[in-house]
Amino acid sequence: MSKQFLLYTGATPNGYKVSCFLEELKIVYPNIDYDVEKIDISTNKQKEPWFIKLNPNGRIPVLVDRARNNFVVFETAAILLYLQQHYDKDNKFGWDPVKNPDEYSETLQWIFFAHGGVGPMQGQLSFFTKFASEDIPYAKKRYLDETKRLYGVLNIRLSQGGGRDWLVGPGRGTYSIADINVLGWVTLHARTSPDLQSLDEWPNVKKWVEAARARPGFAAGLEVPK
Amino acid sequence: MSKQFLLYTGATPNGYKVSCFLEELKIVYPNIDYDVEKIDISTNKQKEPWFIKLNPNGRIPVLVDRARNNFVVFETAAILLYLQQHYDKDNKFGWDPVKNPDEYSETLQWIFFAHGGVGPMQGQLSFFTKFASEDIPYAKKRYLDETKRLYGVLNIRLSQGGGRDWLVGPGRGTYSIADINVLGWVTLHARTSPDLQSLDEWPNVKKWVEAARARPGFAAGLEVPK
Repeated sequence: MSKQFLLYTGATPNGYKVSCFLEELKIVYPNIDYDVEKIDISTNKQKEPWFIKLNPNGRIPVLVDRARNNFVVFETAAILLYLQQHYDKDNKFGWDPVKNPDEYSETLQWIFFAHGGVGPMQGQLSFFTKFASEDIPYAKKRYLDETKRLYGVLNIRLSQGGGRDWLVGPGRGTYSIADINVLGWVTLHARTSPDLQSLDEWPNVKKWVEAARARPGFAAGLEVPK
Repeated sequence: MSKQFLLYTGATPNGYKVSCFLEELKIVYPNIDYDVEKIDISTNKQKEPWFIKLNPNGRIPVLVDRARNNFVVFETAAILLYLQQHYDKDNKFGWDPVKNPDEYSETLQWIFFAHGGVGPMQGQLSFFTKFASEDIPYAKKRYLDETKRLYGVLNIRLSQGGGRDWLVGPGRGTYSIADINVLGWVTLHARTSPDLQSLDEWPNVKKWVEAARARPGFAAGLEVPK
């Protein structure tokens, strides 16, 4: 029988964001489950017409919610917010926009910080390090410097108010989609570039990544797709 | 007397997104008004400690809401969503997450598409065209191609279902923060690169930009800061 969700994904930082959150949700809400269709981006399957109908941008991941009339959601962060709103009924991984508007806004702020900063900049570093057909030291340095600067911003955030465990929430914060959204990228730092092997420069970030990796749901999501 | 909002901004695409929306809101809700503090990014004022306390990422725009205990919002898209939720009471420029969850999700999807795609990629094109200390044709071509591809995605979206005027909403769509969020960048295409002077390749996008520019609120926002 089909499971509720169909996730088109690949073994990339953006893909992991969604599988990590789905695995976390499965632990708290045992009725949640999802089918995975692995998209081979090396053959540009995500640019085929049937996929463009789902996401005109031709990118994974895409989520289809069979329980809501096959509603389609693209863009990783939009998928996290969709799943949190509809299926995290106890708000274990996020905040209700009406009841906790400030935490909801802070969640959006850190999600957008990652979505417009860490994701694209670390992505460009990866491109110029591993895929570009020309070796361009200027570009590699630009994106390495910017990625490191952004990790520094996360380190500042995690030091605020005497120290935080997670990006959003009162006190030391609560693990939420704000963390999952950026951890997808930061966790894979060593895969991006030989110059990004260690997180020692950002001790708060290092501890935060280790704490996420120790969570069974988050760790399981990093193994999807098989 | 201080106005309700204080907007730290500059004459950049990200700055315009917020001023355009505030000007639109002022027309519908005459009680809304804002003070502007222009941040001179050429002198790195946004990297000074007092500003880092507002936004650890050291970027404009930042909004302070004096009516809600000086609540601070950074990241343009998070500011748009904050203003829409709290101050667009009639949902003229967006959808309620609970009453219209599908339109709310589609708004987020197109906002994230812009925030992770059009903004950073057009931004890199601008950087390698105007600011880089080395001339790197490979990088200029990469980001020109990607910006054009993303404009093509917008063009597809605006052609769906027999044609749309705006990105989100039933039928031909309704002007919303999903449009404002990406128009801040697309409207300034010609300023980005000599190779991006015309929108003729994307007729739906061209019409859409012209329709936005014809709106008094949107047009006023492009003049802020003075």
